[in-house]
Amino acid sequence: MQKVLSATDIAQMTKPYRTNLINSLPGFRGANLIGTISAEKRTNLAIFNSVTHIGANPALMGLIMRPVSEENRHTYANIKATGQFTINHVHQLIVEKAHQTSARYPVDVSEFDACGLSPAFSELLQAPYVAESFIQIGLELADEIPITLNQTILIIGKVLEIRLEEKWLAEDGFIRLDQAGSLAVAGLEGYAQPQELVRYAHAKPNQAIQRVAF
Amino acid sequence: MQKVLSATDIAQMTKPYRTNLINSLPGFRGANLIGTISAEKRTNLAIFNSVTHIGANPALMGLIMRPVSEENRHTYANIKATGQFTINHVHQLIVEKAHQTSARYPVDVSEFDACGLSPAFSELLQAPYVAESFIQIGLELADEIPITLNQTILIIGKVLEIRLEEKWLAEDGFIRLDQAGSLAVAGLEGYAQPQELVRYAHAKPNQAIQRVAF
Repeated sequence: MQKVLSATDIAQMTKPYRTNLINSLPGFRGANLIGTISAEKRTNLAIFNSVTHIGANPALMGLIMRPVSEENRHTYANIKATGQFTINHVHQLIVEKAHQTSARYPVDVSEFDACGLSPAFSELLQAPYVAESFIQIGLELADEIPITLNQTILIIGKVLEIRLEEKWLAEDGFIRLDQAGSLAVAGLEGYAQPQELVRYAHAKPNQAIQRVAF
Repeated sequence: MQKVLSATDIAQMTKPYRTNLINSLPGFRGANLIGTISAEKRTNLAIFNSVTHIGANPALMGLIMRPVSEENRHTYANIKATGQFTINHVHQLIVEKAHQTSARYPVDVSEFDACGLSPAFSELLQAPYVAESFIQIGLELADEIPITLNQTILIIGKVLEIRLEEKWLAEDGFIRLDQAGSLAVAGLEGYAQPQELVRYAHAKPNQAIQRVAF
């Protein structure tokens, strides 16, 4: 039975219902921990489900920052202060700790300590990686674009460094996200493990889809 | 064995290798078909992996449009001409047809016809839905934000209508994306089925993570 919801229906929903529904609409998204450090060298960690690919050359990643308020300003303030952040894939073994970073900790508490995750540092940047994460990306702030419709911000980072298990890197550069156990997020608080990964070749008109062995 | 890749390494990669690698970095993303129609009433369908949530109230979805060229201008031109587009989740039964929409068809060929998918129309908008898709979202263009770093564009749509199977809508508004079979994309051309979905309650400091039954 198909249900149809209009913009008026959406406007009349309770806030929690609408939040759950609208956050489900993009489909599954990547579960990533964003690592930052303050000017005072205090580390911070926050889970995001909005990391997306902006471009490959230069290598740019984007994420949507909610309107900056007293409660969620730590990640944003740190990115602005240092010009750096890290993206760290969440897998099954750390998913509860990763979700716990979404609790509202005071500014003087590091989510690394509070949630039981370990910072790891590279010579290339100050921002901390999550040592337990199997796919770690270090970035420098490249642009910050205000979305005036709702006061969110598109943060764009340029990739400075990628750290990952070599065995998950296929010969052609593709990362075996399924073997690395990278999780997908449904809505704000659902997590699932993508399985049975298939790869297709570039599609061409009038030619049947071909699977790629990898 | 951890492998470390620097920005210099990335710059020196072959284009296909870099494309595969950098597109894998955000982790899994939603597989969505974008439906549009031209001023001349020609339908168009294109697969995107960059749909993201911008906000719940008003309900806004974003997607990243690659630099507009002769080859990929159809979706963009149609969104500009009509001010509308649809987002349609891809599931296992239509994944090959959905991937086939990425082939380069001439402007006078509708990917619906060429790939064997069926347009479905609502009274609310001209842009076509994908009849075979279980979760369909109709949107009007709300903003278009140029990303000057690489000439991509953030397209933002306001949700006008949501059409989905009622059985996948939980009591609290959460959509059972796992039951609906919504697929996740790895890189540009890998597809996987997220399974074993768990949901957690809002995290709070000093309280163990709680699962939510649903």
